[in-house]
Amino acid sequence: MATITGVRVEDVRFPTSVTADGSDAMNKDADYSAAYVVLETDAPDPDDPGGTLGGYGLTFTIGRGNDIVAEAARQQAAALVGRDVDQLAADMGAVHRDLTADSQLRWLGPEKGVVHLSLAAVLNAAWDLVARRAGKPLWRLLVDMTPEELVDVADLRYLSDALTRDEALAILRTHEDTKQERVAALERTGYPVYTTSAGWLGYSDDKLRRLCQEAVDAGYQHVKLKVGADLGEDLRRLTIAREVLGPDRALMIDANQVWDVPEAIEWMGALARFDPLWIEEPTSPDDILGHAVVRRAVAPIGVATGEHCHNRVMFKQLFQAGAIDYCQLDTGRLASINEIVAVLLLAAKFGVPVCPHAGGVGLCEMVQHVSVLDYVAIGADLTGRVTEYVDHLHEHFTDPCLVADRGAGTAYVLPARPGYSTRMHEESLDRFRFPHGTYWVRDTADHVPH
Amino acid sequence: MATITGVRVEDVRFPTSVTADGSDAMNKDADYSAAYVVLETDAPDPDDPGGTLGGYGLTFTIGRGNDIVAEAARQQAAALVGRDVDQLAADMGAVHRDLTADSQLRWLGPEKGVVHLSLAAVLNAAWDLVARRAGKPLWRLLVDMTPEELVDVADLRYLSDALTRDEALAILRTHEDTKQERVAALERTGYPVYTTSAGWLGYSDDKLRRLCQEAVDAGYQHVKLKVGADLGEDLRRLTIAREVLGPDRALMIDANQVWDVPEAIEWMGALARFDPLWIEEPTSPDDILGHAVVRRAVAPIGVATGEHCHNRVMFKQLFQAGAIDYCQLDTGRLASINEIVAVLLLAAKFGVPVCPHAGGVGLCEMVQHVSVLDYVAIGADLTGRVTEYVDHLHEHFTDPCLVADRGAGTAYVLPARPGYSTRMHEESLDRFRFPHGTYWVRDTADHVPH
Repeated sequence: MATITGVRVEDVRFPTSVTADGSDAMNKDADYSAAYVVLETDAPDPDDPGGTLGGYGLTFTIGRGNDIVAEAARQQAAALVGRDVDQLAADMGAVHRDLTADSQLRWLGPEKGVVHLSLAAVLNAAWDLVARRAGKPLWRLLVDMTPEELVDVADLRYLSDALTRDEALAILRTHEDTKQERVAALERTGYPVYTTSAGWLGYSDDKLRRLCQEAVDAGYQHVKLKVGADLGEDLRRLTIAREVLGPDRALMIDANQVWDVPEAIEWMGALARFDPLWIEEPTSPDDILGHAVVRRAVAPIGVATGEHCHNRVMFKQLFQAGAIDYCQLDTGRLASINEIVAVLLLAAKFGVPVCPHAGGVGLCEMVQHVSVLDYVAIGADLTGRVTEYVDHLHEHFTDPCLVADRGAGTAYVLPARPGYSTRMHEESLDRFRFPHGTYWVRDTADHVPH
Repeated sequence: MATITGVRVEDVRFPTSVTADGSDAMNKDADYSAAYVVLETDAPDPDDPGGTLGGYGLTFTIGRGNDIVAEAARQQAAALVGRDVDQLAADMGAVHRDLTADSQLRWLGPEKGVVHLSLAAVLNAAWDLVARRAGKPLWRLLVDMTPEELVDVADLRYLSDALTRDEALAILRTHEDTKQERVAALERTGYPVYTTSAGWLGYSDDKLRRLCQEAVDAGYQHVKLKVGADLGEDLRRLTIAREVLGPDRALMIDANQVWDVPEAIEWMGALARFDPLWIEEPTSPDDILGHAVVRRAVAPIGVATGEHCHNRVMFKQLFQAGAIDYCQLDTGRLASINEIVAVLLLAAKFGVPVCPHAGGVGLCEMVQHVSVLDYVAIGADLTGRVTEYVDHLHEHFTDPCLVADRGAGTAYVLPARPGYSTRMHEESLDRFRFPHGTYWVRDTADHVPH
């Protein structure tokens, strides 16, 4: 027996705005933050002699309002207290349905915004707990499921006009027999990544050039830059980046939603000569039809979006409308594995590569599991796939993601430790808990949060 | 001079789940609630000798989580403290831009869910304040604006592929010279309404029959029923309603998002024989393309949606995709008049009648201003228009909406008092403030909020 005995939710904020890490055309002063959920149990942790089993999950925000998400998570997670962990594990589809079915909280979305971010945090913690209980990394727990088990986990509501349960099963069964081959391949090479660390808008030209060179030296084949604040600056920065990267490495650009549709098309006309692989978030993340118009206008440059795509119904339409070339689902915005599996299945049906959004806090730790799941059991293809990696804040996690170049370009090393990789060090919580952590109490003389 | 000196935000909840008022196929146990914002000033109230000028606004929720919305409103409204009321009034477009531009809070939407609901409450209070300062009902303040002033108020961001500023101005100028004629017409007849009071799912057949008869007796030409929980029950309830209404009165039905797209089409095949004017919320409110498919399949029955449509970008696409016959925008979900004017302009361009969602708490009080604005200055047409009215909870407002039949069917009587009509009685706040109001402390022996 293992019973969930309590819930702890933490508002954790890192002062990233001080260094302009994470700065882009829409978000100039992000303080990377996590609404962090701990599900406490009364059972021993099989992986930690003397320790107690817990589930650790989070969603990512950029500062103010993280307390609001934390409070919503607190209210939603309360429904899990007293539940038996093994019963949860046996039907995680039902856990997801129970938590999304609160008719009063549903009004606040539905399935979007604060209550969906917080639900992601709670369910991420639940999935972490279930994987730790099983003693497996989450990707392994998922790829070990039968097609029927994985479909039962997926939230297919509102999708049947695009993907039936039978079609979903057929996709999974196609790849069932060859899963272990793909696991073995990833154990050799890792899962390919690109870096955004070089290209934040707030960095100087010298820093941009140096970081691009470091990315090349580290084996990256893909580098992403932020654009969209000023056309002249974009031209100058992209010239630098392309010089350093050379003609063969991929250069992606990200406008973070600053343009209207006609403006996106015009601006991209000026940036096309840098041969970007994709333009990311060219306009409002809600504008499915607008993305489709932009995509037709800027081809062969690809259109990518998803980090603000709030649920599977929006992704369904992005696919139906032929609006995107790359699906950048977000593990803090979708309601955890249940909704992510549904989107991976949709993407497989429509033939759109999934390149998850990462960076932030803990997103890299999570997306490695999702990309491995996709390749091993669902999409079963690496063509056009590359997952985001940003090199910061990993030191706060007990099982940080690792990247390495094993001869096929820089790649995530397959997670080997149990869980979803998002447990944070207690010392990090003590320092960056907002507003009473030691950093925020003592070290903020030169940094009032904006 | 009039300065905003403070903000008060209240979590107010009414125990409507006790009587099944508001019950539908998705929301079985709504406790109608308001996140209620008071902007306090240091100026005298021109309408209340000895009183102090204030702005009173709200957004509507259905219970749990209302505290979360209230907290978000508290954080957003803080930016207004210290501001001069007349400066605000002179550029309400800038007020809206300032409050939506918080890049950290924006991450929690963007422009959706809790932070957009709360922004609606804050901006509704700001618009109420500005109208009270001018001594005018809000509709009058707005129709007295020039086309340029009204366009400057509107949030047109992300809309230029569907509606340019020049097109918006052209729409307003077309109707500029005849505004007073339409005001005079509405002063005679009021603005046409329909009632949802008869048709909640939790009511017995006898109560349904009695309430339908009362609606007929009160002069209603349109009555709306909830459907979607059980087909057999729908057939029985619609038979009763159609018997009482006769063949000529309009019957609308509302599924509150319970169906997938194919299910909606199949279910509506079975309900078509009751000749409904529209099917409301047949599927996920995010499913623009799904609504378009349903609309083509169920014609000539109309498709209506909007109470959960979270922003103008979604409405733009509903219009572009030809997905709806009726636009049911919601005054608690869109970010107040700034976003509502944008949607009214889009609707006018695409020729879709606007029939705002109401009911709840305070929504009827607000929508009367919006519908009058639409008819007088923007859409300038009553064809196909009918605004929702639900007869409950009006007693909590100092200037409740009024409906009357003046010979052209039941209609909202034009609001005559200054403001947006959403100021609540202090006694109502004292009783229903959650969780410490006298009702929740004393009277809840038989009602634990679900």
